[in-house]
Amino acid sequence: MRDFFDPDGIMVIGASSNPEKIGYVVLESLKNSYMGRICPINPKGGEILGLKVYESIEDAPQCDMAVIVLPASKVPDAVERFGRHGGKAAVVISGGFKELGGKGAEYEDEMVRKAREYGVRIIGPNCIGVLDTTTGVDTFFQPRYAMLRPEKGSVSVVTQSGAVGIIALESLAKSGVGIDKFISYGNKADVNEIDALRYLMDDDATKVIGMYIEGLDRGREFLDVLRDVSKKKPVVVIKAGMTAHGARAAKSHTGSLASDGRVFIGALRQHGAIVADDLENFLDLLNFLSLQKLPEGGRTIMVTNGAGPCVLTADWIGRSPVVRLGHLSYETRKRIEERLPDFVNVDNPVDLTGSATPEWYDKALDEIEKDESIDVIIAALTLQDEGLSGSWEELLNILPGRKKPLLALASGGAFTEKVSLELQKAGIPVIPFPRRVVATIEKAVEYRRWLEKQSI
Amino acid sequence: MRDFFDPDGIMVIGASSNPEKIGYVVLESLKNSYMGRICPINPKGGEILGLKVYESIEDAPQCDMAVIVLPASKVPDAVERFGRHGGKAAVVISGGFKELGGKGAEYEDEMVRKAREYGVRIIGPNCIGVLDTTTGVDTFFQPRYAMLRPEKGSVSVVTQSGAVGIIALESLAKSGVGIDKFISYGNKADVNEIDALRYLMDDDATKVIGMYIEGLDRGREFLDVLRDVSKKKPVVVIKAGMTAHGARAAKSHTGSLASDGRVFIGALRQHGAIVADDLENFLDLLNFLSLQKLPEGGRTIMVTNGAGPCVLTADWIGRSPVVRLGHLSYETRKRIEERLPDFVNVDNPVDLTGSATPEWYDKALDEIEKDESIDVIIAALTLQDEGLSGSWEELLNILPGRKKPLLALASGGAFTEKVSLELQKAGIPVIPFPRRVVATIEKAVEYRRWLEKQSI
Repeated sequence: MRDFFDPDGIMVIGASSNPEKIGYVVLESLKNSYMGRICPINPKGGEILGLKVYESIEDAPQCDMAVIVLPASKVPDAVERFGRHGGKAAVVISGGFKELGGKGAEYEDEMVRKAREYGVRIIGPNCIGVLDTTTGVDTFFQPRYAMLRPEKGSVSVVTQSGAVGIIALESLAKSGVGIDKFISYGNKADVNEIDALRYLMDDDATKVIGMYIEGLDRGREFLDVLRDVSKKKPVVVIKAGMTAHGARAAKSHTGSLASDGRVFIGALRQHGAIVADDLENFLDLLNFLSLQKLPEGGRTIMVTNGAGPCVLTADWIGRSPVVRLGHLSYETRKRIEERLPDFVNVDNPVDLTGSATPEWYDKALDEIEKDESIDVIIAALTLQDEGLSGSWEELLNILPGRKKPLLALASGGAFTEKVSLELQKAGIPVIPFPRRVVATIEKAVEYRRWLEKQSI
Repeated sequence: MRDFFDPDGIMVIGASSNPEKIGYVVLESLKNSYMGRICPINPKGGEILGLKVYESIEDAPQCDMAVIVLPASKVPDAVERFGRHGGKAAVVISGGFKELGGKGAEYEDEMVRKAREYGVRIIGPNCIGVLDTTTGVDTFFQPRYAMLRPEKGSVSVVTQSGAVGIIALESLAKSGVGIDKFISYGNKADVNEIDALRYLMDDDATKVIGMYIEGLDRGREFLDVLRDVSKKKPVVVIKAGMTAHGARAAKSHTGSLASDGRVFIGALRQHGAIVADDLENFLDLLNFLSLQKLPEGGRTIMVTNGAGPCVLTADWIGRSPVVRLGHLSYETRKRIEERLPDFVNVDNPVDLTGSATPEWYDKALDEIEKDESIDVIIAALTLQDEGLSGSWEELLNILPGRKKPLLALASGGAFTEKVSLELQKAGIPVIPFPRRVVATIEKAVEYRRWLEKQSI
C-alpha cells in the first residue's frame, strides 16, 4: 500500500496533450504537487507540460506507481507491462469495467489476473484515485480551478464513490480541515476498504478516518479490522444504500450489493464505527474529532451573544438521547454573574446579549471550564454583531485551549466564513447549524462510551 | 405598517459619532441604502457621516419613521415626543425591557402606553428591526463588512430572534436568494407576527414568507390569519422552543411561553404552514419556493454525472413518506438511450457518468420533462468534473425553464459556489446536501396537497 502514497516515480499511462482529456488533467495534478519523477506514456511521444513523453512503458525509467487512464480494453495489457517493468502499484482511473457488466467485467477479471501474476496492487478501476498531502501524490482528474485541494492535516478519507469523495474533500478544504491521505477505490477490483483501513491503522499521520461505503463483500473481516482500528483512532462511517431505494441505486453504481441497512448499522456501531447521520454529520465529525478531545459525557453548556440559535440548539438537545442541557453549579453561576454586567443572563445558554465582546466570553469560559457538571461547551457566535466583529481576533486566543471540548456555532456570509477559517486554524471546529452541532456532540459521546466499554 | 417600509423621512434617535456604538452603525446602514431624508438626533448636535445632527426631536423636520437606540429608561419619553412631532412608526432596537423583567418590564409597558396615546406603531424592542430592499430602509446595527445585505427578491422574512434573522438573511444573500422585506420584532410590544403576516399577505412584492417563531400569545388569531395567507402564498415556519429544553431557553430569551411542540406543529400544518425540519430546511424551502413551481406529486427522478450523492439521496427518498423514486416510462428510457452513449445507465438516477457534458443533461431532460410519471427533477452536478467545469455556462441555458420543477444538488468549494450562484440567478435552486434536497421536495409536495384540499 505504501507505494500508492510515497512511490519512487509515477507513470501516467495514457497521458494526453489535450487539456480537455483526463490524461492531461491527471498529469497536471501530479506536476503541481508531486516532487518525484513523473513519466507520461503515450505512443506519440513528444512533450506535455514540459515533461518528456515516453512512447512505451518499457522506454520509461522504472516507476513504483502508475496512473492508468486508458480505455478499459487496454488496461490488462498495460498492467502486465507495467508489472514486468518493475511497477508495484497502479491506480486505474478509467471506467467501463464491472460497473457496466458484459465485456467490462471480463476486462476487470483479466486485469486482476495480470496484477496478481506480476505483483501489482490496484486501486480502482472507476475511481478518482489517491491524494497524499505529504508526498504530493494527486491523481485527480478534476482540474484545480474547479476543485480545491486541502491543506495538510490529520484526517484521512476512504471512499467508494469518487463524487462523494470530492464533496468531502472540497467541503473539508473549504472549512479549513486538513487532510492527510485520500483513497477513492471505486470498483475495488483489488485494494478495498479493508486494506485501506489496515494501512491507516498504523499510519501515524492519520488521526481520524472517514469512510463512505456502499457495499461490503467481506463483512465479517471488515468488522474485525474496524474494531481494531476504532480502539486506536476514530472511524467515521457514512453508509449509503441503507434503504431499498438506496440499495438499488448503489447496485447500479458500483455493482455492490448493499446489506440490510439497520442490521448492518448496528454491527458497525458495535465494532466502534461512528456512523454519521448524513453527509453533513460525516464532515462535522471529521472536523471536530481532528481538533478536539472526546467529551466525557453529554452535559452541554451554551455561551452566546444571540439567544435564538441557542433556543433551536436546545430543541435538538431535547431530542437527543445522549446530549443534555448542562446545569452550572451555583458557585459557577455566582462567579460569572460577579464578573459580568447585570443584564447578562446566566442560565443555559449563558446569554451574554448582543453587547458581548470576546472578553465577556473569556470571563464566562474561565468559570465554566472549571465546573465539573459540564462536559462540553458550545460557543455560539453571532460574529456579525459589532461587539464581536470589531475585535474578533481576540477570539483566537480566548476559545482555544480550554479544559473541556469546545465547538463554535456560527453561520453567515463572507466575514463569518473568514473568521471561522481562522478559528479552525486555531483548533476550534466551527459548525454552522444547530442540528449539526448537537449531532456532532452526540456521536462523539457515543464513541467515547464505546471506547470505555472496550477497556473494561 | 407601510410606514416601516416606505416612510417619508427617518429619524435616528440616539445617533452617535462613535463608530463602535449602535447609534453610529444604524445611521451608516441607513445612509448606505435609504434615499429619503435621514435625521440623526443627539443633544450634542454637530454632524455625523456628513449628516446634520438635530439636538432634539422637535428641532428636526417631521419624519414618518424613527429608529430608537436610547437606553430603555429614555425610550417612553422619546416615543411620546416623536408621536407629538408627527411620527408614525418607531423601530426600537434597544434591549433592557421585558426580557429582563423588573424595571425593564415597566419601561416597556409605559412605552406601549405612550405609543397608543400618540398613534405610533412600534417594532421591537430588543430587535434588529427592518430591511426593505426596494426603499433601502435598513435599521441593522451589524456593520456591512460583517454582514452581507441581500439583493432584491421575492422572499420576506419575519423573525422573533435577531440572531436567527441574521443567519437567515446572510445565508440567503450568500446563496443568491433575493429578499423583499425583513422584520425582526423581538419582544413584540406592539407589532407582532400577526400584523406582519397580514401586511405581507397583500404585499405583491412578497411571493414567499419565512417566519421564525418562539412563542405566540394569540394562537387562535394567528392560525386564522395563517390559513388566509397560506392560500395566497407559501408561509415557511421554523418553530423554536419545541422541546421542554428549548421552551425554557425561549422563555429566558424573549419572555415567550412556548406552547406544547407537537400539538402546535400539527395546528400550524393544518392551517397551511410549511413547517421546516431545521434551519437548513427553512432556508432551502425559501430558496426553492421563490424560484420554482410546486411539484404535482413526489415522484422524483435524479440525473447525475456522479452516482454516489444520488445513492445517498435515494436513501433519504426511501425514508420519506412523501417523496418517491420515480420510474421513467419505457418510451422515455428508450429515447434517452438512443440519444446518449451506451455506457449511460438510464435508471433512477439517470447516470450520465463522469464523462457527461451539459449537452447530455439537455438530452436527458428533454425526454424526462415530457414523462407523465415524473413530478420533480433533481439535477445532481459534480461540477468539479471536467465535462461540466469546462462548459458550465451551458447549464444556465439547459436547466432553467423545464416543464417540471427542478432543483440542483451540488456541493464543493469556490468554483462550485460561483457556478451555483449563477444557477440561482438563472432560477435554479441549488441545495448542497442529499438530505436537504429530499426534505425540500417533501415539504413542497405537502403544501401543494394542503392547497388542493382547500379548493375542494
